[in-house]
Amino acid sequence: MNQLRKRVYQANLLLPEYGLVAGTQGNVSGIDRKRKIIYIKPSGVPYEKMKATDIVGIDLNGNIVEGTLKPSVDWIHHAFIYKNIPEIGGVVHTHSVFASVFAACEIPIPCFTTGQADIFGSEIPVTEYVDNKADNIGKAILKHRKPGCPSIILGRHGVFAFDENPEKAVFAALMTEYFAKINLFAIILGKISKKTLKELPKYEIKKWYERYHGKGYGQK
Amino acid sequence: MNQLRKRVYQANLLLPEYGLVAGTQGNVSGIDRKRKIIYIKPSGVPYEKMKATDIVGIDLNGNIVEGTLKPSVDWIHHAFIYKNIPEIGGVVHTHSVFASVFAACEIPIPCFTTGQADIFGSEIPVTEYVDNKADNIGKAILKHRKPGCPSIILGRHGVFAFDENPEKAVFAALMTEYFAKINLFAIILGKISKKTLKELPKYEIKKWYERYHGKGYGQK
Amino acid sequence: MNQLRKRVYQANLLLPEYGLVAGTQGNVSGIDRKRKIIYIKPSGVPYEKMKATDIVGIDLNGNIVEGTLKPSVDWIHHAFIYKNIPEIGGVVHTHSVFASVFAACEIPIPCFTTGQADIFGSEIPVTEYVDNKADNIGKAILKHRKPGCPSIILGRHGVFAFDENPEKAVFAALMTEYFAKINLFAIILGKISKKTLKELPKYEIKKWYERYHGKGYGQK
Amino acid sequence: MNQLRKRVYQANLLLPEYGLVAGTQGNVSGIDRKRKIIYIKPSGVPYEKMKATDIVGIDLNGNIVEGTLKPSVDWIHHAFIYKNIPEIGGVVHTHSVFASVFAACEIPIPCFTTGQADIFGSEIPVTEYVDNKADNIGKAILKHRKPGCPSIILGRHGVFAFDENPEKAVFAALMTEYFAKINLFAIILGKISKKTLKELPKYEIKKWYERYHGKGYGQK
Repeated sequence: MNQLRKRVYQANLLLPEYGLVAGTQGNVSGIDRKRKIIYIKPSGVPYEKMKATDIVGIDLNGNIVEGTLKPSVDWIHHAFIYKNIPEIGGVVHTHSVFASVFAACEIPIPCFTTGQADIFGSEIPVTEYVDNKADNIGKAILKHRKPGCPSIILGRHGVFAFDENPEKAVFAALMTEYFAKINLFAIILGKISKKTLKELPKYEIKKWYERYHGKGYGQK
Repeated sequence: MNQLRKRVYQANLLLPEYGLVAGTQGNVSGIDRKRKIIYIKPSGVPYEKMKATDIVGIDLNGNIVEGTLKPSVDWIHHAFIYKNIPEIGGVVHTHSVFASVFAACEIPIPCFTTGQADIFGSEIPVTEYVDNKADNIGKAILKHRKPGCPSIILGRHGVFAFDENPEKAVFAALMTEYFAKINLFAIILGKISKKTLKELPKYEIKKWYERYHGKGYGQK
Repeated sequence: MNQLRKRVYQANLLLPEYGLVAGTQGNVSGIDRKRKIIYIKPSGVPYEKMKATDIVGIDLNGNIVEGTLKPSVDWIHHAFIYKNIPEIGGVVHTHSVFASVFAACEIPIPCFTTGQADIFGSEIPVTEYVDNKADNIGKAILKHRKPGCPSIILGRHGVFAFDENPEKAVFAALMTEYFAKINLFAIILGKISKKTLKELPKYEIKKWYERYHGKGYGQK
Repeated sequence: MNQLRKRVYQANLLLPEYGLVAGTQGNVSGIDRKRKIIYIKPSGVPYEKMKATDIVGIDLNGNIVEGTLKPSVDWIHHAFIYKNIPEIGGVVHTHSVFASVFAACEIPIPCFTTGQADIFGSEIPVTEYVDNKADNIGKAILKHRKPGCPSIILGRHGVFAFDENPEKAVFAALMTEYFAKINLFAIILGKISKKTLKELPKYEIKKWYERYHGKGYGQK
């Protein structure tokens, strides 16, 4: 089996393992840029029954080119992101709980702590509400995303995360949920304690982000 | 063993697996419409000790027709729902944590996000408090339920979920808890941020609900 | 090995399994009324390393009569409860998270929902703060406990639960945590929604409690 | 393999097991005082892929003396603590969720309950925000830590915990998260209930701390 198809399968299984989805909601895709094939979760298939061969290969217009199942109804938003952001290799969509809290309020996730600065380099931005027609979701993401930030809150909807491969996109979705939880309760504690919470200064955020993404971090 | 009885057994086991119950509280049933037999959890039996043959078969008046144990004391509410809503094939009762928060406050779960619109097509309604006598619970459910919405909050009590089969009813109970958690924290964050949270407009909710329940979603 | 000693061992293991303790905090005991021996967790032994033979047998004055380890430093409170409430056969002490929230505030857990009425038959009461000297904790429990209610919040400390055997006492500790969580968030949601939360009326609580404890419930 | 190196490996694995980290964030170290070697997590290696031989041995200036990978970028803060607090044998750094809530607000975790008094003997203090340059983090820890208290909140950053060995430092990190969660919700419940929450009196805290750390507790 195609290596990327298998990776997309395994990356989809991380969503329930990380507690980012309930039911059949949520999906991960990955793109083979050379062959112009997107591998994506099939529509409405529960994670615990999904097999690697259920992962669907589609072209950028949604035509099925590999597999026998129908792709996620969200394929069009994934395809839009791949078409418009060339460096992206993996896309994730979830309604994870605490990120959805910010989505319900149409509030971005502010960058209060260094851990978020490391990974996101900014607040995690939010879009206005858009419906599920045509390219509306994709366009809203493009309009509001922050450079270098691998995730966005979709107003009244959920999360899209995107990075150079499916595994990194899942990681961004996980950390979005993680900092949504911290920041929700920080906003509550700050309010009760009459502390004015501020984001870290921009130059401090930059310092942490560059360290984490630079040569000094990891085994590069 | 009867196939439905086994399915009801397995659907009951999903309640602790999904974290929707503690102790012996909660129960799932399924109805065989042809034979007019309801299969339901036995009363007071812990999930971890329950065997498939412990599932009780009763007629619509609560007479035991299969098995040796006594049915859940809630059998009467299950039977009332089956008698009065012909399209229902499975019923679930829980006191899951976040749904119980709304129950304690006698507040419905508003439809803030598209994920809830997909599945419930509306707020999840709430009944006034009723006691456990005769048909009081069943009548309150019938009075307040929303067409197409597979779940309801029972004032100062818990949740009833119902759908065409036991598995789908358990899924509705799971998603009720999921959106109760999101919406509780959205109400708190909205209040603190001085954002006036509104439900999605009715026509938008309809759009998502129809997509999710229509031919475009899943492998139909 | 003595059967009760083994049961006390297994009941202690339920505390980490149910997420009611962290570290070495928390303990379960059971009493053999005929032999006047209390079996209790040894002091400071992590749950994951504890063996059945580590359970200590003591007399009512704390003298070790079985086993080689020292009993929990809380043995004196367990013994006090056994001496003063003859129908109790098992005692549990925890600092479980949401019950500790009520303890920190010295606020009882109000009876908002029927699930709590079933098991506790009232609010879960709270004691004032007392230190760990002599019988102070035991006396505070005796002074504030509610008849029929198998649990109490110890002001600025944690939970004591007690019932006819160790397993039932652990169950009471579990359900104390469960309703503490529901009621904490109900108080928050009620406040934000400007709903005045009231306990269920006393006669309604009684109705549910008597049903749950009566012949109609379970396989009695 | 060196025994301490293996222990540091296993102590690092406790972080994801206890839910104290997400992704590659967080790290544990231990020092061999005789050989002046610090064993520490390698930089950017996911916990689920890390092998015991990936643990890096460094001298107090960060030179690699054992292993082939680069140490955590946080090694300099670990080394500073070892140099300046001679009784410390293990150090842990996390961004655990509820501790990070206090970090985001730059608020210490007050000592509301006896369980915290047992272990920490005081509030868990907080530092002002400092950046990741040179000894800034280490100096802030030294300036704000409380004698006998094995943990500190790093303003807008996370947690450092330290104790006589790596396992005890991980335990302190776990309990920091535990009481952060209790105390966050206690602050909220107190506020809503118009209760003025106070710390336990200093002499009461001392009494519990001394009992827990004295000869009476555990199997000493």
